[in-house]
Amino acid sequence: MTLSIGVLGYRFMGKAHANALARLPMFFPDAPDVERSVLVGRNEEALESAADQLGFESTATDWADVVDEVDVFYNLGPNHVHAEPSIAALEAGTPVFCEKPLAPTLETAEEMAEAAAGAGVPAGCAFNYRFVPAIRYAKNLLEAGELGEIHHVRGRYLQDWLVDPEAPWSWRNDAELAGSGALGDLGSHTIDLVRFLVGDDDLAGEIERISGHLQTFVEERPVEGDDETRPVTVDDAYTAQAEFENGAVGTFEASRFASGHKNDHTIEIHGSDGSLRFSLERLNELEVLRDENRGYETILVTDEDDPYVDHWWPPGHVIGWEHTFVHENYEFLNAVETGDDFAPNFEDGLAAQRLLAAIEESDDRGEWVTLE
Amino acid sequence: MTLSIGVLGYRFMGKAHANALARLPMFFPDAPDVERSVLVGRNEEALESAADQLGFESTATDWADVVDEVDVFYNLGPNHVHAEPSIAALEAGTPVFCEKPLAPTLETAEEMAEAAAGAGVPAGCAFNYRFVPAIRYAKNLLEAGELGEIHHVRGRYLQDWLVDPEAPWSWRNDAELAGSGALGDLGSHTIDLVRFLVGDDDLAGEIERISGHLQTFVEERPVEGDDETRPVTVDDAYTAQAEFENGAVGTFEASRFASGHKNDHTIEIHGSDGSLRFSLERLNELEVLRDENRGYETILVTDEDDPYVDHWWPPGHVIGWEHTFVHENYEFLNAVETGDDFAPNFEDGLAAQRLLAAIEESDDRGEWVTLE
Amino acid sequence: MTLSIGVLGYRFMGKAHANALARLPMFFPDAPDVERSVLVGRNEEALESAADQLGFESTATDWADVVDEVDVFYNLGPNHVHAEPSIAALEAGTPVFCEKPLAPTLETAEEMAEAAAGAGVPAGCAFNYRFVPAIRYAKNLLEAGELGEIHHVRGRYLQDWLVDPEAPWSWRNDAELAGSGALGDLGSHTIDLVRFLVGDDDLAGEIERISGHLQTFVEERPVEGDDETRPVTVDDAYTAQAEFENGAVGTFEASRFASGHKNDHTIEIHGSDGSLRFSLERLNELEVLRDENRGYETILVTDEDDPYVDHWWPPGHVIGWEHTFVHENYEFLNAVETGDDFAPNFEDGLAAQRLLAAIEESDDRGEWVTLE
Amino acid sequence: MTLSIGVLGYRFMGKAHANALARLPMFFPDAPDVERSVLVGRNEEALESAADQLGFESTATDWADVVDEVDVFYNLGPNHVHAEPSIAALEAGTPVFCEKPLAPTLETAEEMAEAAAGAGVPAGCAFNYRFVPAIRYAKNLLEAGELGEIHHVRGRYLQDWLVDPEAPWSWRNDAELAGSGALGDLGSHTIDLVRFLVGDDDLAGEIERISGHLQTFVEERPVEGDDETRPVTVDDAYTAQAEFENGAVGTFEASRFASGHKNDHTIEIHGSDGSLRFSLERLNELEVLRDENRGYETILVTDEDDPYVDHWWPPGHVIGWEHTFVHENYEFLNAVETGDDFAPNFEDGLAAQRLLAAIEESDDRGEWVTLE
Repeated sequence: MTLSIGVLGYRFMGKAHANALARLPMFFPDAPDVERSVLVGRNEEALESAADQLGFESTATDWADVVDEVDVFYNLGPNHVHAEPSIAALEAGTPVFCEKPLAPTLETAEEMAEAAAGAGVPAGCAFNYRFVPAIRYAKNLLEAGELGEIHHVRGRYLQDWLVDPEAPWSWRNDAELAGSGALGDLGSHTIDLVRFLVGDDDLAGEIERISGHLQTFVEERPVEGDDETRPVTVDDAYTAQAEFENGAVGTFEASRFASGHKNDHTIEIHGSDGSLRFSLERLNELEVLRDENRGYETILVTDEDDPYVDHWWPPGHVIGWEHTFVHENYEFLNAVETGDDFAPNFEDGLAAQRLLAAIEESDDRGEWVTLE
Repeated sequence: MTLSIGVLGYRFMGKAHANALARLPMFFPDAPDVERSVLVGRNEEALESAADQLGFESTATDWADVVDEVDVFYNLGPNHVHAEPSIAALEAGTPVFCEKPLAPTLETAEEMAEAAAGAGVPAGCAFNYRFVPAIRYAKNLLEAGELGEIHHVRGRYLQDWLVDPEAPWSWRNDAELAGSGALGDLGSHTIDLVRFLVGDDDLAGEIERISGHLQTFVEERPVEGDDETRPVTVDDAYTAQAEFENGAVGTFEASRFASGHKNDHTIEIHGSDGSLRFSLERLNELEVLRDENRGYETILVTDEDDPYVDHWWPPGHVIGWEHTFVHENYEFLNAVETGDDFAPNFEDGLAAQRLLAAIEESDDRGEWVTLE
Repeated sequence: MTLSIGVLGYRFMGKAHANALARLPMFFPDAPDVERSVLVGRNEEALESAADQLGFESTATDWADVVDEVDVFYNLGPNHVHAEPSIAALEAGTPVFCEKPLAPTLETAEEMAEAAAGAGVPAGCAFNYRFVPAIRYAKNLLEAGELGEIHHVRGRYLQDWLVDPEAPWSWRNDAELAGSGALGDLGSHTIDLVRFLVGDDDLAGEIERISGHLQTFVEERPVEGDDETRPVTVDDAYTAQAEFENGAVGTFEASRFASGHKNDHTIEIHGSDGSLRFSLERLNELEVLRDENRGYETILVTDEDDPYVDHWWPPGHVIGWEHTFVHENYEFLNAVETGDDFAPNFEDGLAAQRLLAAIEESDDRGEWVTLE
Repeated sequence: MTLSIGVLGYRFMGKAHANALARLPMFFPDAPDVERSVLVGRNEEALESAADQLGFESTATDWADVVDEVDVFYNLGPNHVHAEPSIAALEAGTPVFCEKPLAPTLETAEEMAEAAAGAGVPAGCAFNYRFVPAIRYAKNLLEAGELGEIHHVRGRYLQDWLVDPEAPWSWRNDAELAGSGALGDLGSHTIDLVRFLVGDDDLAGEIERISGHLQTFVEERPVEGDDETRPVTVDDAYTAQAEFENGAVGTFEASRFASGHKNDHTIEIHGSDGSLRFSLERLNELEVLRDENRGYETILVTDEDDPYVDHWWPPGHVIGWEHTFVHENYEFLNAVETGDDFAPNFEDGLAAQRLLAAIEESDDRGEWVTLE
């Protein structure tokens, strides 16, 4: 059987997933066969050109024509177009793979999760960093109890593409279109990774309460090719501190103003028996401190028995950021074919969204917010 | 003229300062001559032995006999004995050098600062990390505007000596004696460094409001050589997020539960034109990202024209933690001799204390606290 | 026009190049169209399976049937089968892309270079590390004179897959089949990169004389699935020191016994005005020390205007080892289409081989060997 | 008993040892009592000033008056004045502590070692890097067999103070006065550390044969405060490759032309069961890869049970370069008092010198040189 795939969105994420789909046969031959069937977008010219380059068989300008015609629907558009097409697809019984964050608002995310709950088909939320081999390796260590009980969790995602006040306005600066700024775009990744890594009850559990702070450093930005400026209605940076179910303490942060940092997503965890550190810009590495050690061991997670690595190259031949998409597509499509559960799903997307909303609410009220 | 010095406290800090005093003549020949005159403590036997090893001419068991007999009084005892002898010395017109944090409570710190304000002699608070050459170098960069306007400040101080629940109880676990735990012991260093580095109005200014969280992971600890346990009434860890006068965002953290970290005090700053990073465990280094650079430059701050370095060894011959005490003693004693201002002084100690108190208050109330 | 490609070899290198060819249309749309036409091998069953997975249209067990039928011939077999098919292809006027090292012996390499010289079509030697963006960036810095005149060059390639004396014998341990061991397999990469980076006359020029040392730590190894052992007739490690035309000093080294190092190829260069460092296991980074700096700047070479990067992902989204093959295939196929020169070519392969042979000769004679 | 100490030399090394002697009572109270009795030099004015600053009781301009009057004689002058006073002292039965390298020529070093052999008192050669806690820790690991049999040893010492061709001429550039350049000054440290760490028969044993290369990049240099230039008659850099008794392979290198490196002495060792790395500019750290680990563990060698550390500060409070002198003075003076053996002694100094001489001879002859 070959799964026909319809994809909404042909920019950054469109390319990342199209590439992943194209690479499956050579590296994951046990993955389902797929067909890049339809690419969906509004600008016909750009769409044709993208479909050609990304290897799609056809194009469509209305997602409504697509969601019930394909075997799988990928929603890779901007945040504000996540909900409607995804829900329509799910209602048509079509499995959906949706980019993160799930939605610009908590309410919309809840609707999406509800649609997914009733659909009986996989509804994945594309938190691709769960599929970094080093992160899987960390997850295995944590689950095996090698770090003991968790006391500290630190997550931070630093970029600098807005530090120049003249950097142009985009949809990512608009609350209507994006929901939030660094918080949703970057913080959602952090929140999801943290839940993935320490969310088990015998590690730290879920985040129980949180206190957040949002900041916008530059209030308006020039519109490209135009004389006007537009207001920035989202955060340029956020910080948060949290308490987990077991009493562990968390600090989270993201920024688009961290000069010199391009895509620097770091996670640090301290447990009673050890610690670990991960940085996305060195994604083949994991730093681990075990009970029997005194310092961090820098592990190059490229050995044959490391997660996913046997599909690629010999030890020491590092992989890149894009490989995380291959892994997540492999897992998601397998779930589609077998009917198994896939995580992260819309529930996970919603859980992250609840925490993002709690951070915003806390910032509004100047108080801690307790999650239900 | 030779300054006679009386020192209260002969343990860790006593030794650190005695060593610093002993090294001045060889390395800072322009420092005032000093005489380690009197060492003050309660346990006569231990005191004699310490005085002998640390090179003191005499001992005393009552500080009251000392504070007006010496030219300078060093208060290096535990936090709860900072106030009374320091105030007595200042009232006697004796310059005082007091370890940090200034006091276990904000009220006491205010009394001390008041005494200092009226004394007309230097009253220094021994935040020694201001005297790391790499920190001075960073300060110079910041003052010269090389990092532009400050957007982010991150400070964290990680230790792990309490991660074992069987680690014995000490005065540092007691609210009466220590005031607070990681917050006062470690966080005070962070707060002071941050104020020192970015406190100028054209950088970030002072911290305007703050939200803190204190956590105690282990509620009671065994008493050494005894069957009983005693309650831990201070924090094992704290986190805080802050907003500076200019809108910059800060995150602060300290812990005694960070497995594998011994004395890891790191400061990170992002400005509109650059960034910097410092880590105490590599205190000879500073990582700097300037506007014309793309990545951090790892600077070994051991060149002849780096702060204090010409007094020591040729480039690349690294110094240690203890050297910060030599530098601070040099500066403080010069101020005593010349009558010049010395910073950090009791005002700085109080300013840090206000922030520590605000963090505790915020933790109590679950809200942000605005500094006056 | 579509170029039909015949490929000899379907293991590690076969997969690396097939993947590269498959990725060109999506990421390098201006590359020539290619067709993975024929995959050549001896074991029919394995060959069929590989052709299927790697996307080849047909298979052949005799390269002689292929070399004049395809537009381009890729020779990715073991070293001892590099010469005959490559020469046959070139004699048939078919462009050849051959894996490194060019040949097991200098004589054979000379025959291959001679065939290439007379062929009038591109004959590329697949030193893929020339196509790492960070290496290209380094090359640009060097060519712009930013490091000044070169004084020191250091290259070392460390692996550890033979440190276990029970690791099984393979063709790579046999002088007949492989030519040499770590020297040819790893050292050829180092030698080529060094020539590429500093070989220009105004940097260091070519290596003028060299002194080498080969060592075999384990003299025989077990044959897998067999009771016997076979002798190891190649080096497990080599070291060399060299003098360049301008008097610069080089040290080179490779090993299969460097415990804990998987694929650690590092290059370090010191010039009169600066220094640089590169490590293959962190291939997205380059450490550069320029005249105006005091320490190394860690540059993440993933900006849009960095070499090849605009074809991939936004800044900070790192690429992997395999991407170097995409870049080299792109350049080679462009040269095939346009008739432009391609480097590294068989002349470069021969130049490296001359240095490898000089190292072996020096080891035999216990003396320095001067290159003509 | 108090040992009276006479010291020849009051510059860099004079200050380093005077400081070490001054610090013993406070940190190593079980060390013998010492008296900085006589400081010896030729320039009376400078000598008086130095004696005053360094805490010496008296001065002398003729070492011959001193060597038999003191309990211990320290020879810290330039290389060419090592022999005569040291031999005279030993002949007078006075223990001698001499800076490295032992002598400018092998012949002189042999005379010194002969004098020491007959003297019956300790004759130490001040290779201070043996006394870095991290190096001692490494030594313990190696002796315990944790790295297994040694295959690779790498040592390199990089400085850059001569990279500027206008850097002034000094005695260190003169073959008569210094013996050699980077080779003797820096390489002697490397050679000694390597012998110390892996010289045991069950590790790698001694170096059996060696091949060296010396290079002078700038042939003459300006004399400070003068119009003339003087020839540089020593090496600016050396490289060497070596074979140890057990077949292990070594590469060594030093330079005064390594732009950006100030005092960068690194040692790397690969054994059958693990690897380690040390860098002098981060001397509190040791990177260790043990058999059960996959990557290097960065150990901060500042724990209480680490070598010498209990004398200093709590874990994580790093020490500096100068502390190595305190440790070596402590050990040497203890040996003087107890009559125990002290290492490194003149035999070790001679062994290093033999290797330096072999490197020079190899460079002259263009051949490997076998050590007897």
